[in-house]
Amino acid sequence: MKIGIAGASGFTGKKLVEILDKHEAGIEKVFSDSLAGKKVNPEWPEQDGIDLQFEKFSVAEANKLDLVFLATPNEFSALVAPKIKTKIIDLSQVHRMKDGWVYGLPEVNKSLIQDAERIANPGCYATASILSALPLKDSNLHSIIFDCVSGISGAGKKNLQENNFNYLSENFFAYKLADHAHNKEIKHFFGKNAFFTPHVAPLKQGLMCTTHVVFDEIPDVQGITELYKEFYSGSKFVKIVDFIPDLEKVRNTNKCFIGGFGCDSTQIVIVSVIDNLVKGASGQAIQNMNLMLGFDEKEGLS
Amino acid sequence: MKIGIAGASGFTGKKLVEILDKHEAGIEKVFSDSLAGKKVNPEWPEQDGIDLQFEKFSVAEANKLDLVFLATPNEFSALVAPKIKTKIIDLSQVHRMKDGWVYGLPEVNKSLIQDAERIANPGCYATASILSALPLKDSNLHSIIFDCVSGISGAGKKNLQENNFNYLSENFFAYKLADHAHNKEIKHFFGKNAFFTPHVAPLKQGLMCTTHVVFDEIPDVQGITELYKEFYSGSKFVKIVDFIPDLEKVRNTNKCFIGGFGCDSTQIVIVSVIDNLVKGASGQAIQNMNLMLGFDEKEGLS
Amino acid sequence: MKIGIAGASGFTGKKLVEILDKHEAGIEKVFSDSLAGKKVNPEWPEQDGIDLQFEKFSVAEANKLDLVFLATPNEFSALVAPKIKTKIIDLSQVHRMKDGWVYGLPEVNKSLIQDAERIANPGCYATASILSALPLKDSNLHSIIFDCVSGISGAGKKNLQENNFNYLSENFFAYKLADHAHNKEIKHFFGKNAFFTPHVAPLKQGLMCTTHVVFDEIPDVQGITELYKEFYSGSKFVKIVDFIPDLEKVRNTNKCFIGGFGCDSTQIVIVSVIDNLVKGASGQAIQNMNLMLGFDEKEGLS
Amino acid sequence: MKIGIAGASGFTGKKLVEILDKHEAGIEKVFSDSLAGKKVNPEWPEQDGIDLQFEKFSVAEANKLDLVFLATPNEFSALVAPKIKTKIIDLSQVHRMKDGWVYGLPEVNKSLIQDAERIANPGCYATASILSALPLKDSNLHSIIFDCVSGISGAGKKNLQENNFNYLSENFFAYKLADHAHNKEIKHFFGKNAFFTPHVAPLKQGLMCTTHVVFDEIPDVQGITELYKEFYSGSKFVKIVDFIPDLEKVRNTNKCFIGGFGCDSTQIVIVSVIDNLVKGASGQAIQNMNLMLGFDEKEGLS
Repeated sequence: MKIGIAGASGFTGKKLVEILDKHEAGIEKVFSDSLAGKKVNPEWPEQDGIDLQFEKFSVAEANKLDLVFLATPNEFSALVAPKIKTKIIDLSQVHRMKDGWVYGLPEVNKSLIQDAERIANPGCYATASILSALPLKDSNLHSIIFDCVSGISGAGKKNLQENNFNYLSENFFAYKLADHAHNKEIKHFFGKNAFFTPHVAPLKQGLMCTTHVVFDEIPDVQGITELYKEFYSGSKFVKIVDFIPDLEKVRNTNKCFIGGFGCDSTQIVIVSVIDNLVKGASGQAIQNMNLMLGFDEKEGLS
Repeated sequence: MKIGIAGASGFTGKKLVEILDKHEAGIEKVFSDSLAGKKVNPEWPEQDGIDLQFEKFSVAEANKLDLVFLATPNEFSALVAPKIKTKIIDLSQVHRMKDGWVYGLPEVNKSLIQDAERIANPGCYATASILSALPLKDSNLHSIIFDCVSGISGAGKKNLQENNFNYLSENFFAYKLADHAHNKEIKHFFGKNAFFTPHVAPLKQGLMCTTHVVFDEIPDVQGITELYKEFYSGSKFVKIVDFIPDLEKVRNTNKCFIGGFGCDSTQIVIVSVIDNLVKGASGQAIQNMNLMLGFDEKEGLS
Repeated sequence: MKIGIAGASGFTGKKLVEILDKHEAGIEKVFSDSLAGKKVNPEWPEQDGIDLQFEKFSVAEANKLDLVFLATPNEFSALVAPKIKTKIIDLSQVHRMKDGWVYGLPEVNKSLIQDAERIANPGCYATASILSALPLKDSNLHSIIFDCVSGISGAGKKNLQENNFNYLSENFFAYKLADHAHNKEIKHFFGKNAFFTPHVAPLKQGLMCTTHVVFDEIPDVQGITELYKEFYSGSKFVKIVDFIPDLEKVRNTNKCFIGGFGCDSTQIVIVSVIDNLVKGASGQAIQNMNLMLGFDEKEGLS
Repeated sequence: MKIGIAGASGFTGKKLVEILDKHEAGIEKVFSDSLAGKKVNPEWPEQDGIDLQFEKFSVAEANKLDLVFLATPNEFSALVAPKIKTKIIDLSQVHRMKDGWVYGLPEVNKSLIQDAERIANPGCYATASILSALPLKDSNLHSIIFDCVSGISGAGKKNLQENNFNYLSENFFAYKLADHAHNKEIKHFFGKNAFFTPHVAPLKQGLMCTTHVVFDEIPDVQGITELYKEFYSGSKFVKIVDFIPDLEKVRNTNKCFIGGFGCDSTQIVIVSVIDNLVKGASGQAIQNMNLMLGFDEKEGLS
């Protein structure tokens, strides 16, 4: 199997390199326009076991591969995807909920993913939000509030005011209160009464979704908890826990822990946590690749 | 005026000392059982302008004062308050929403506070939550979700697993999802469809409340924003801003900034920020003292 | 008195604005090319008590002032200083140890500063290093190692790889091991056997110098401690403490705490701490201004 | 092979469990008095692949093993070691530089370790310090200053004032300026003119040693750099790099990166970094076990 990564210099690209380096598929090509000509090591001294050279992205080279990951900006993914003939997993936003692309959330679309040629890998917030409420998708509920908090690596590698240490340390901020791009993914599953708000905490990696489900009547908490356990009983990575999970519990893993289930009158509060760069991005992309290429679903991820 | 502080060794007690040191009222007594016999300086080397000695709390000494702050644990406040004859501002939870005690939120109860003998100072989460939705108190709405995040100083000075740096750095956690003590204060104002969930971020000081107001119909955002500006036009410390405020904007001040007003279908998202140790505790206590004793409301706080 | 600040948008410029806002001298002009035309408030919403407008720097306007602070890049300071006729305090590196400029370390040059027209404000590392060893300046010693650690605000406001939260959180780095610009200032006082190495820790504000003084013989620690206390007995801001000071003890103050005095064979270890933006920059600049213009040395700084 | 870990609940004990879980030797016993009777999972939910139960330490059970790690307090190690008949690797301080115990620094004592029954695993500061200067051990030098900075996990798991987030965030402190326990290990190698001072930065994991070597004459930097490269050419984990390494480069690895080699007059500055919990503790212990039991030196560590 020949696997390539485009956009290898970013956080999700680098994480793909790290995971694939220990995956039986291995890595054939690492494309990065900004690092082209340099070797992975010593460019990344902590990766001193990898003997590969970055090269400029080329459609011709990509088409010699069995599968290429696009860990690239939206515009780049939109531009090159139509020219690529091989299998694609696109980590950008641009192909989500688009015709011809399977939404790469294995807990929803496993069999579609197994047969897919083109996968749109879900957003990090969308992954944690959707997984936290999926078992209630067809329940009779009034509204769902997904109040999410991410580490700053979710904003990517570019230097911004928001990821300047002087701004972020000891700070906390909300943004795009009601119009974040991941909103579309979330509403696709839960409808117009699903509301999503993102925040950033002073930490690098990790994502929590606090899901407030408001019912019209007092809900059956125990029944709901059992529904969740049943729903995810076959999942390789999603686990219902009997505590309130914090970010540390899933750091550098492809797991999603879901717990809490606190109830106050007609509202239930559910907490899901993922690592935004793993289950929220590169790990989930590898999980999708495993399904597409016939590897064990957990290969490289445990 | 003779002012005393009981429980001076904790975070809120120390903050009261800092504020009062620059207040025209000054400080007469600092009570702390754990520090009794020591001098404020050098015990607190950064306070090298204060020449006071900690002493054990005594009801007799407290009764010689014009006003005493109880920055003490719930049990202690409950025990000593009935024996104190002078004015009290209690920062513990124990007297909130109790007969004989005025709830010390000046934006609601200013005239009651001016005449009060006993003030129950509001909780930090409750302050940010109530202020963020107060202008909508009598509106026709379906539910309100107060999703709050605090710095860890809110947990007090005791060494806990939660405030151990090894646990908290790069982490984020939720707790008491639906049954935090401040819930009572919040529901008192907004009724049973008001839901509150607290979180802690890896930072020391600051508190954000992200308030999701769900209406039955699409709300008039501009009208609501103007309602807020009008409602708080006379407030000395609450300010409606035309951006999404972050914690840094109100650090070490008694201000509450409210902004955001993002709208998605029937939901409005409003963000309020305070410093949990100032407007969320000691600063608000001083504001209450200013009203009770006839000082300018901002004395010591700007 | 008419005081102006050039380069007001940077960290040290903003800190000068904050201090002068509470100083009896007040602020006449805030120059900032990048913010020209904007008002201090709401540009800095946390400074809602200041009613001033940023304007482009102009030599003509600067010359109408009694004193102008240059919180500007080296090149800018070098360019404009020769054209300015009024008193200058330059916070850049460019005029330190240059003819015609007094080195603005009040603990060394108080009377020269009082009569000066042009002050080169010391570097932050140099301030902590020099103060930590000044009483030993003429002692018979073999070598001095100044091993310093600063918060990242010392690198200024520009977005760099080093101040990106993703890089700095949970990290620690050394740089310019033996050739930092402040080396010149330090060697000026202590000679060629004085060595200085800077580091950055994952924090915003604060600076520690761990000074290793190596003697040829076993030193008299108690005598040295007493020498320090005597030497700094008249100082308004430098204090010898009988513990090992940490950064928190001097946060947001113009103080320098010096302590430690640990001895191992022929070596003494002395620890000094300052706030890099206050005693290491803007606070010291105000202290210099106070001396130049006849204010109390502590005005605005306590 | 049957391997056991005593003191499994602490940071170094847990890290041993994590490493051994992926090591071909596996884990036979996890001893922890505080967790006895609980299962590793769910006690550590992030270790959901491990099926082991904590049990109280017993000499009889330990003696059935091939090797036992003592990740235990000094007093406990001192008490039980004499009663244990099997191979021991003691991570506590108590047996370092003691008769009958081999100092487990493989870069110095590889063949002794291979034949040893009892290993005293080196201190974290000592490891980084000794490795940074070992090639200069027999050079003609005047003095060496090891100025070290560690993450707070080095202080262990107990809740202390120093590891309280409210104290440590945005802070930095020095301690035991000239009399830290690791001093003995360092002076054993470099003599009385070697001086060591530890600091703690606001971070969890990682350790830097900034080594200032003062010569009597101007040293040959290039020659020294080549000496280092030659000296460590056969090392599996120590690497001479041509940049100044920061903590991130060796996070969660057993590597020691050494670089810098900045020269100012008669002084050279060398910077070494390790992960204090891996090469500074548990990883090095596994490296020692690998040598003792005939595994590949890197087994479980790459």
